[in-house]
Amino acid sequence: MKKTQENIKIIPLGGLGEVGRNMTLLEYKEAILIIDMGLRFPEEDMPGIDFIIPNISYLKNKEKNILGIIIVHGHYDHLGAIPYLIEKVGNPPIFSSALSRGIILKRQEEFPRAPKLDITVVKDGDKIGLGPFKIEFIRQNHNIPGNLGLFIKTPVGNIFHTSDFKFDKEPINDLPTDFKKLKEIGEQGVLLLMSDSTGAEEEGHSLSEKTIEQNLDKIFKQAKGRIIAATFASLLNRVQQIISLSEKYGRRVCVEGYSMKTNVEIARNLKYLKIKKGTLIEAKEAVNYPDPKITILCTGAQGEGQAVLMRIANQEHKFFHFKKGDEIIFSSSVIPGNERTVQYLKDELYRQGAIVYHYKMMDIHAGGHAQIEELKEMIRTIRPRFFLPIHGQISMLVKHGEIAKGLNILEKNVIIAENGQIINLSREKIFLEKKTVPSNYVMVDGLGIGDVGEVVLRDRQMLSKDGMFVIVAVVDKQTGQVRGSPDIISRGFIYLRESKPLLAETRRKVIDIVNKTTGSGRAVNWVYVKDEIRNKLGQFLFSRTQRRPIILPVVIEV
Amino acid sequence: MKKTQENIKIIPLGGLGEVGRNMTLLEYKEAILIIDMGLRFPEEDMPGIDFIIPNISYLKNKEKNILGIIIVHGHYDHLGAIPYLIEKVGNPPIFSSALSRGIILKRQEEFPRAPKLDITVVKDGDKIGLGPFKIEFIRQNHNIPGNLGLFIKTPVGNIFHTSDFKFDKEPINDLPTDFKKLKEIGEQGVLLLMSDSTGAEEEGHSLSEKTIEQNLDKIFKQAKGRIIAATFASLLNRVQQIISLSEKYGRRVCVEGYSMKTNVEIARNLKYLKIKKGTLIEAKEAVNYPDPKITILCTGAQGEGQAVLMRIANQEHKFFHFKKGDEIIFSSSVIPGNERTVQYLKDELYRQGAIVYHYKMMDIHAGGHAQIEELKEMIRTIRPRFFLPIHGQISMLVKHGEIAKGLNILEKNVIIAENGQIINLSREKIFLEKKTVPSNYVMVDGLGIGDVGEVVLRDRQMLSKDGMFVIVAVVDKQTGQVRGSPDIISRGFIYLRESKPLLAETRRKVIDIVNKTTGSGRAVNWVYVKDEIRNKLGQFLFSRTQRRPIILPVVIEV
Repeated sequence: MKKTQENIKIIPLGGLGEVGRNMTLLEYKEAILIIDMGLRFPEEDMPGIDFIIPNISYLKNKEKNILGIIIVHGHYDHLGAIPYLIEKVGNPPIFSSALSRGIILKRQEEFPRAPKLDITVVKDGDKIGLGPFKIEFIRQNHNIPGNLGLFIKTPVGNIFHTSDFKFDKEPINDLPTDFKKLKEIGEQGVLLLMSDSTGAEEEGHSLSEKTIEQNLDKIFKQAKGRIIAATFASLLNRVQQIISLSEKYGRRVCVEGYSMKTNVEIARNLKYLKIKKGTLIEAKEAVNYPDPKITILCTGAQGEGQAVLMRIANQEHKFFHFKKGDEIIFSSSVIPGNERTVQYLKDELYRQGAIVYHYKMMDIHAGGHAQIEELKEMIRTIRPRFFLPIHGQISMLVKHGEIAKGLNILEKNVIIAENGQIINLSREKIFLEKKTVPSNYVMVDGLGIGDVGEVVLRDRQMLSKDGMFVIVAVVDKQTGQVRGSPDIISRGFIYLRESKPLLAETRRKVIDIVNKTTGSGRAVNWVYVKDEIRNKLGQFLFSRTQRRPIILPVVIEV
Repeated sequence: MKKTQENIKIIPLGGLGEVGRNMTLLEYKEAILIIDMGLRFPEEDMPGIDFIIPNISYLKNKEKNILGIIIVHGHYDHLGAIPYLIEKVGNPPIFSSALSRGIILKRQEEFPRAPKLDITVVKDGDKIGLGPFKIEFIRQNHNIPGNLGLFIKTPVGNIFHTSDFKFDKEPINDLPTDFKKLKEIGEQGVLLLMSDSTGAEEEGHSLSEKTIEQNLDKIFKQAKGRIIAATFASLLNRVQQIISLSEKYGRRVCVEGYSMKTNVEIARNLKYLKIKKGTLIEAKEAVNYPDPKITILCTGAQGEGQAVLMRIANQEHKFFHFKKGDEIIFSSSVIPGNERTVQYLKDELYRQGAIVYHYKMMDIHAGGHAQIEELKEMIRTIRPRFFLPIHGQISMLVKHGEIAKGLNILEKNVIIAENGQIINLSREKIFLEKKTVPSNYVMVDGLGIGDVGEVVLRDRQMLSKDGMFVIVAVVDKQTGQVRGSPDIISRGFIYLRESKPLLAETRRKVIDIVNKTTGSGRAVNWVYVKDEIRNKLGQFLFSRTQRRPIILPVVIEV
């Protein structure tokens, strides 16, 4: 029998209090198991940032304790940080489905100096032992195949981690949810359920992919022109639907966009996609087919400027030019923040006479996440003692916690935790430790990982708002007086060519400030001179423009 | 009888192809009538911009032809550009409801040098004659009182302009829609209907304010803590509901936020708001009342950083500090682009134990715009010969046009027009002229109106992405060699303190480039030297960081 003080520490480094960047540690004594290593995309107030990844400083000097990394499915919010972090955690073994492995390896090609990865393929029903953890992989429906929930036996009790999931009785390219298996897990006794909260604020049940297929079928059935279907490259189940419907209605499919081509190739090679011989054609061949025989399957449903759909709409695509009567399917939701670019794209298409279908008009997109009724069913099926909502904003975690309490999980047994908190789980209780671990954003910008911090970001925000203003004054060492006319370099503040009087006045101001502050005859305090320029020029420019550019004085003594 | 060639030109300068910035000209021979003078808020890719206003260059030298400006209601997208443009169009007379006038005059106080305005108050049923136009004002429901549709008799035929509208049988603070009057207008014969398209992509009928009130009543009825209700200051009907419910349930109301205070004061003075004596209290008094006796009515439902709700949530408000059990009502939709800030605010409130109500959970907000069924009813009632959808993105205008065609308006009689196009309307036909007038964005930034253009904006975008890098080299005139070590000033690119080796290498590079290019003994081409620095340094920094800061070389000869 276990001692009562035995516990496991669960440490979310990402994904709790946000959507994306999933990474969680399970620590028993010294041994550490990592679940996921994802990224997320930057907020609007983080210009220039490519991605945000988890902070792994807690793992420093614990590399030898890391048993392995489990990747639950092939989306970037679960595996996208691998190229940036894998070496730093000592390149431990990775366990994932064959599709996830394919996606990880393809991505790794973009990082030529990255180490060779050790990835073991696992599938539904497989069991592995990693130190004190015995893990069984359980298939779960999502919107990409090869998605695995984790049934983890630990020395303190059993944990079930749902992965992202939804219950789908008629999924695409996948078996329906295995309720029998979930029930068996529940019957074995689950100490802790860690369940996906992304859909916890959505009433009812998520749409079945079957419903989506039926609606897409209606569009395909009546379509007289080309079909241009845009979705996420990562929504492989939707990709399968578009391809199957094209085959049904005698259309060839041209796959366009780097990420779309790549994912289709990986999934096809691994037999996750079923595509008849001859269905796929190249863009340059497609122009030889009549319009009703062509589907263009492409990226760009978020209105991304450089993606295929925008280039077709703007008549900038090498092979495909938008024409009146083209039928455009937006088969994805709109990610918050992209509404305006999507609207711009839709307007451009309407302006040119497109027939547009999007998810607000009919159900041609389903999310990949369980909604309230499914979340309830999961809790009822697993019947855990303790409950930890994972994957989601605080509002979603809180809502999911309320759902659990409504199903007779004791209030004290429901833990709302955020990134960096340490959840202490023992057979008897679950609680948050007082101590936390670092979990702040680590920003990736070009080759820099974590080097862009608050200071650089704040400067970028300020630069973008009112621009900058450099003034270069050459000062005579002997007299302390400005020589010639100061140089002005400014960007993003005013249009210089039309502001000559203001610039002339600014130069006179600077000469005046320098001559006054240096003219005392004593040793010159250059820091003071620069501060004076910055302050007085700032006031002057604000009074004239009500803008506050960053002012950078350069004083050169000669 | 009119001659067949007689026509009116309708020229939208804003609001067609966008939501906001409404302004339309009606031109008959020389005479020009202006409807609205609104602004819109900037897109995400326009950092530092305060507002976007219409381009009025078409009106240059036509000031004496302008008969007047009609403002249909008191929202900034219909009147917000007045302070910037009124002088430029010769300060013509304005006609508006009393509430709109109050809002215009209050705003004008922020522009002390602006001219005195000549505003005539008009109300439902009033008729005025302006040159060839006879205008009758017709009340229309929206989410602010004093909203007026326009029945305009012109020499070529009658025009009905709906203003923003919805049909509401049980509105707040307003009479229900006057269908009898609308029918009469239809019976008089309408040549052209100009109808609000903002809701043209929404199925069904907009919610009645009565429904909203019933749902808000449920919240008030059970609330045990303070109620903090956030909405737009411009949603005066919602403001009335919150105040009336507070009175019903014995709560005092503290109005917080500059725009909220201002609007409540204007509307109360003009008797558009009904508030009992003693209901409103100051924040400093509010702290003396028990929680269930207090409503805080405030701005900040969009998660704006400086608005009242965010300051309360962040414990930065002078009088009110958020506490567990506070009940927060978000009674507004989320404007596209604000999803993330709203989510941040909601999370912060949930984290601290708030009870949160928002429009996705229950119907506690209704839009102010007619949806598809109402739009159909308007067309059926007015039975126009020609149809021009106004107010909306292209996708909405197109959809609204389709609705009209579905109601037996001939395809050639439906015109989808955008800003800057000239709609030529005669008794016999309607068509778009080939010629267009300028209608591009005019950006307001501080005191500058229209001075920030493509160049400045592009620089701001570039600066925000990767920052800037100024290098100052002092060169000896005689030898052509760099004196000392070049100065580097950089912001938003890298964190300088942690990048000393890179900066040292950069300085060596610059010395090398200058010395090589100036070392030929011939006259030095400084433009070439600077280009060399810019190009080579750009490549060097990119190779090390994969970032592309704006590089600004300064070379000083001494």
